Amino acid sequence: MKTLLTNVHVLTMDAAYTEFNPGFISIVDDKITAVGAMENLPTDLHERVLDGKGALAIPGMINTHTHIGMIPFRSLGDDTPDRLTRFLFPLEQSRMTASLAYHSGKYAIAEMQLAGITTFFDMYYFEDELAQATDEMGSRAILAETVLEKAPDTGKPYGGLEYAAAFIPKWLEHPLITPAVAPHAPYTNSSESLKQAFALAEKYDVPFSLHVSEMTFEMDKYASEYNQTPVAYLAGLGVLDARTLAAHCIFATDADIALLKETNVAVAHCIGANTKSAKGIAPIQAMLDAEVRVGLGTDGPSSGNTLDLFSQMKMVAYFHKTALKNRAAFPTRDIVRLATIGGAEALGMADQIGSIEPGKQADITLIETDSVNMFPIFDPYAVLVYSAQAHNVRDVFVAGNPVVIDKQLVHADLRDLRSHLNKEMTNFRSEVEKRAEE
Amino acid sequence: MKTLLTNVHVLTMDAAYTEFNPGFISIVDDKITAVGAMENLPTDLHERVLDGKGALAIPGMINTHTHIGMIPFRSLGDDTPDRLTRFLFPLEQSRMTASLAYHSGKYAIAEMQLAGITTFFDMYYFEDELAQATDEMGSRAILAETVLEKAPDTGKPYGGLEYAAAFIPKWLEHPLITPAVAPHAPYTNSSESLKQAFALAEKYDVPFSLHVSEMTFEMDKYASEYNQTPVAYLAGLGVLDARTLAAHCIFATDADIALLKETNVAVAHCIGANTKSAKGIAPIQAMLDAEVRVGLGTDGPSSGNTLDLFSQMKMVAYFHKTALKNRAAFPTRDIVRLATIGGAEALGMADQIGSIEPGKQADITLIETDSVNMFPIFDPYAVLVYSAQAHNVRDVFVAGNPVVIDKQLVHADLRDLRSHLNKEMTNFRSEVEKRAEE
Repeated sequence: MKTLLTNVHVLTMDAAYTEFNPGFISIVDDKITAVGAMENLPTDLHERVLDGKGALAIPGMINTHTHIGMIPFRSLGDDTPDRLTRFLFPLEQSRMTASLAYHSGKYAIAEMQLAGITTFFDMYYFEDELAQATDEMGSRAILAETVLEKAPDTGKPYGGLEYAAAFIPKWLEHPLITPAVAPHAPYTNSSESLKQAFALAEKYDVPFSLHVSEMTFEMDKYASEYNQTPVAYLAGLGVLDARTLAAHCIFATDADIALLKETNVAVAHCIGANTKSAKGIAPIQAMLDAEVRVGLGTDGPSSGNTLDLFSQMKMVAYFHKTALKNRAAFPTRDIVRLATIGGAEALGMADQIGSIEPGKQADITLIETDSVNMFPIFDPYAVLVYSAQAHNVRDVFVAGNPVVIDKQLVHADLRDLRSHLNKEMTNFRSEVEKRAEE
Repeated sequence: MKTLLTNVHVLTMDAAYTEFNPGFISIVDDKITAVGAMENLPTDLHERVLDGKGALAIPGMINTHTHIGMIPFRSLGDDTPDRLTRFLFPLEQSRMTASLAYHSGKYAIAEMQLAGITTFFDMYYFEDELAQATDEMGSRAILAETVLEKAPDTGKPYGGLEYAAAFIPKWLEHPLITPAVAPHAPYTNSSESLKQAFALAEKYDVPFSLHVSEMTFEMDKYASEYNQTPVAYLAGLGVLDARTLAAHCIFATDADIALLKETNVAVAHCIGANTKSAKGIAPIQAMLDAEVRVGLGTDGPSSGNTLDLFSQMKMVAYFHKTALKNRAAFPTRDIVRLATIGGAEALGMADQIGSIEPGKQADITLIETDSVNMFPIFDPYAVLVYSAQAHNVRDVFVAGNPVVIDKQLVHADLRDLRSHLNKEMTNFRSEVEKRAEE
């Protein structure tokens, strides 16, 4: 199948930040075969032609950290100080089921597709069901089964290890899905379970991820028990290498950043979740200066609270400029980079995705410029970061296949997804009501 | 004309935060006459009935600080350190015309209406044309002619004073428009022009506004020249009272806050613009604790960069929680308050607008809950602050008249507005290109 996208303003996000305006993108099957100016439009037959009508075309956006099973938690106890232990963990233990995770997953993937996200890194439970959901929706993903002492999808301590040992080989050959393993955090794991999870990732040569340096109690624990930072503790266990994606790293020290660089660990920066919970601002300028790979993450839908990177890009700009007291810091082009090729680098997938270049996978997001907030455009990167919202995403392709056309899902009906999820939430809701009364 | 809104989740934003879900709102002409639960739906005839279909109904949002003539500047030189003096002032002087301001104004009002903003406080030039634009669009506004030494709409120093002296009486009787006067800032005015502008506001009993404590050079200037803060300097001139709306106040000291309270000055908090430009975070928790009236502002479309308060509400939450190191600070209900009744208080209009209560003006915004980001809703305030985006606004009423229905403008066609504005921007664009080449 040959597909041609015409009359788009292409921001290729290649190393030279090449732009074509007006430009075209030619796709054969799952790959980009040509990109250029409209005056050089290919004349060979394309079965499918989409007139971009002046839309901005960017690489499909990459969400490097989320929990797609958590849609049911959105807007629940947002500003509660002990939210994780009061709401999230107990409700997950008692009310999260394979079916609820599956329906939440489909809904979350729909939300990401509608927001122009083509690849995501998920860390949750019931990843087998979430892989099924991802396959049905046609997104690209790294799906990491969570390991912690007591998980809702296994009956025994650190049962996620056994789960992952079966899950990973099952999905290893899928064209769009990469299975993986993710200890929840150092503080919810034993040193043994961390090492076993890492060994499993090494065995199958798949990604490994965990929350790191996210909590003040976590920092205190490793300082008092080990006289170390969590990053140093993990390095000591030998679980940090190029396959490791460390989420958050809010409290990373200069020594930690040097260690992240030395071990070639990547960081998923979730500015919205980190600041909504008043935790702080991760030092990503210092990480980028040290050539640590950094991508952006929405975090889960109850933390973020939306699964779109436009909100996150805005906050990266506003928070880091303010923290650095420098309005020229984090220019908008660099922020769009974090959401695209930067994310691809963080996931170790920059050879396949993250920029619009011949030979790469055809993961492409078109953003319409007709809506009221999208005018005028002196600088397309500034428009993407400061003005654009998820709703402006019009068409989305993953591996050459449309998943969103004219702001509508291709692989599902949004009302059906919500209706199914809502029905699955019955027991979850009654537990929430019970807890609210307590 | 009697209008009935049915099947809405009403967040009245009254003093008790009363909610009705499902609820109704009954409107006669320009006023709310009844609000309640659907089970108490009035049975008398309403000529116009709108089924809310589960939408959230909130008071029309109030934007306490903007510059609606500045749409042409959006995405131009955003991250430039000396942006105000390099781009904004020179382009305004050389290329801003009455016609460009008018067309920008209509476009900006359209953007605000589509985002659920029913009342705004504008500070710009050519306010006579902007009043015309506001009248044609059917929004409620306070429109303040700017005074500074050299303005684009007058031929002589501080000509804004003369302009305002003619503009204010001309529009004083308009049902939706309140004319006003606004010195740009202390540092762009003489003490004499500040006092004359204030005397004019007093003469007609209209609002008075200016940018205060926004710039580091401003703080330095008043410290070195007067050994005072700008707030103390203005208080010394006698230009601070209940009619005064101070925009920004980023660097307000505790003594300034006490002075703002003592003089009953209100503050327009523009968190997006303040942080995008790396200036800082105004201490509005301290202001609110001191019972200073505070509203939210988008600032101009080149500063904000969108004219919607959903973006601003999110940033109020994220920035102030982080600055205060307290995730429970600024609970979402309080933030929705700032965008509605808080704004009304800041503008001295709380007797007319800002809450859904019988007797008040029927300024109402309906936000649909069908879109992917609006589910589930455990807490409607959290959804409004953390999940909702401008695009979710479905229907908007000002003084009982619809200005947006089904996400479409009632008083204009968006394509026409853009087409006219784009045509008017020809000279502006060529000057931008000339400057880019320099």
